[in-house]
Amino acid sequence: MKKTDLHELRKDPLLGRWVAVLNQSKSPSEYGQYALDADKEENCIFCAGKEKDTPGEICSIPKSGTGHNPHEWWTRVIPNFNPIFRVEGELGRKGEGMYDKMNSIGANEIIIESPEHSVRPEDIGLDQMVRVIMTYKDRMVDLEKDHRLRYTLIYKNSGRKAGADFSHPISHLASTPVIPKRVKEELDGAKQYYAYKERCIFCDIVREELRTATRVITETRYFVAFCPFASKFPFETSIIPKRHNCAFQDIRTDEIEDLALILSVILKKLRASLTNLPFNYFIHSAPNRIPRKNHWHTLGDDFHWHLEIMPRLLNTSGFEWSSGFYILPTSPEDAAKHLREV
Amino acid sequence: MKKTDLHELRKDPLLGRWVAVLNQSKSPSEYGQYALDADKEENCIFCAGKEKDTPGEICSIPKSGTGHNPHEWWTRVIPNFNPIFRVEGELGRKGEGMYDKMNSIGANEIIIESPEHSVRPEDIGLDQMVRVIMTYKDRMVDLEKDHRLRYTLIYKNSGRKAGADFSHPISHLASTPVIPKRVKEELDGAKQYYAYKERCIFCDIVREELRTATRVITETRYFVAFCPFASKFPFETSIIPKRHNCAFQDIRTDEIEDLALILSVILKKLRASLTNLPFNYFIHSAPNRIPRKNHWHTLGDDFHWHLEIMPRLLNTSGFEWSSGFYILPTSPEDAAKHLREV
Repeated sequence: MKKTDLHELRKDPLLGRWVAVLNQSKSPSEYGQYALDADKEENCIFCAGKEKDTPGEICSIPKSGTGHNPHEWWTRVIPNFNPIFRVEGELGRKGEGMYDKMNSIGANEIIIESPEHSVRPEDIGLDQMVRVIMTYKDRMVDLEKDHRLRYTLIYKNSGRKAGADFSHPISHLASTPVIPKRVKEELDGAKQYYAYKERCIFCDIVREELRTATRVITETRYFVAFCPFASKFPFETSIIPKRHNCAFQDIRTDEIEDLALILSVILKKLRASLTNLPFNYFIHSAPNRIPRKNHWHTLGDDFHWHLEIMPRLLNTSGFEWSSGFYILPTSPEDAAKHLREV
Repeated sequence: MKKTDLHELRKDPLLGRWVAVLNQSKSPSEYGQYALDADKEENCIFCAGKEKDTPGEICSIPKSGTGHNPHEWWTRVIPNFNPIFRVEGELGRKGEGMYDKMNSIGANEIIIESPEHSVRPEDIGLDQMVRVIMTYKDRMVDLEKDHRLRYTLIYKNSGRKAGADFSHPISHLASTPVIPKRVKEELDGAKQYYAYKERCIFCDIVREELRTATRVITETRYFVAFCPFASKFPFETSIIPKRHNCAFQDIRTDEIEDLALILSVILKKLRASLTNLPFNYFIHSAPNRIPRKNHWHTLGDDFHWHLEIMPRLLNTSGFEWSSGFYILPTSPEDAAKHLREV
């Protein structure tokens, strides 16, 4: 390697975090193969027919025309078995010496994405992905009514290395009585940018990515999917709505169909490139109880909901944990190029 | 589980991050066993006698009385094989569209903690731990002279799950031209606390922990080791000097001996409790070029160096990555009690 062959440091415009982009990109095949850690289907309580083995159902999308058959559903939401956050009780904020604590009030739910154990919703046609996203929306709308809750997070873990305990396709929901730190950082970063530029940073990012196009994987009518300029992990992908909208709950039906399409395409592209890759995805929306308006650049409307997909190909070391600084062995441009072509 | 049996949310006083402490603590044995992923000694280039196979030595502590024998050393520092940060070149800060980037100027070194492959410095007597810490100090003092560098981070990865690529006992050093985000957050948190209380938050934490004693594992003349109130990971341990001092480089010789003692004791206690546990540790010191003074509560002296040990027993899921919110299956009080008694 030549002395002049320096790696590049890039700054995340929202969070101010730096990442090092290595100058010789690793290809997907260089990340190795991941084993699929499937638990046995016969023991799975998320499958259709095992409804009695789960805690009481919160809601479901029943298959139409099946009358009242409880085994016939498309998606189902149940409470977590060992919830971290619970609805019952008081917030009980208090001090303990110099420290602060409170009760773990909130909600913790499991969104079962399919009645079938080994089918991924993105593989069986758009209709199922639409139902999954509709279920996300319904739960967020419902939980927003509880004024003790400040934030609802929807996330998915796929593969044991990404923290998944089950192989049945499920997503998770956690509603918390505080705004989580990572979300707070995004809100603060977006507010600062808005104060300086009088523009939404996410709208600017969408325009910049579409203008340069080197990091774009695909775009649809309402969404763009790209590998962020200062990604934390290789093959990281952001899906951002083109329409400025701070709250995921305000997504329209035609936008849900479009999101189902682009999310399916990206998940399939990632899986085609990186066999059985462990990954997480999550939705970041504005916190509850923030006034929401749908007009472009309305005062105070400095946040913009989005979905992030994080492939978990690397082990994080003491460097990442102690610095918040990430090393990217594949550049976002090379990752996007590969995902465009696959 | 009773409805009233709520988990507890705790706030990190420095970073503002919340964690959920579960109300039924897991014991160390419930975390399972970890395999020791040893690479073969015959291929190891960090061992004594393989000096020619490594990049040019930066410094070493030679064994005394061995004259100029290059194979006889106690600790040795070499450049990283594939450095992320390099000394040669210009910072080259520039914009790219709406984004910011710069060259990856800095330093990236490996600190070989022992000439022997399968010996841990904490197991062979205090003298070797003293030499390792002395080597950390010498490198930080030396790198502080380069005014392009804003921060030097020293960290250790032990076990593949903690990001270690080698089983020979080594530590890492990374000097960066920017202050890493996680360090910036600590500096900001400490500054805010100082502005409000006119006291160093770390000094307050030391006093609070010694007063309540429930989270203290052990204390020595100059240091206290405890499981933080809002730990991110189970069995996480902080070692904080009792003497207010923002910069690790200003550590005195008698303090180095004392740090070697307490660090050895804690590492042995952790290893005795959690077989082959993967862990990281790192030192957080004040950034370069901040005026340093040694008097208690000197104006501007709102930071306090410390060492954090992070056992890596759990897989992080989409929840932790999307929220910055951590779940603690063992309370810091129970973890400290176990580590005190082991």
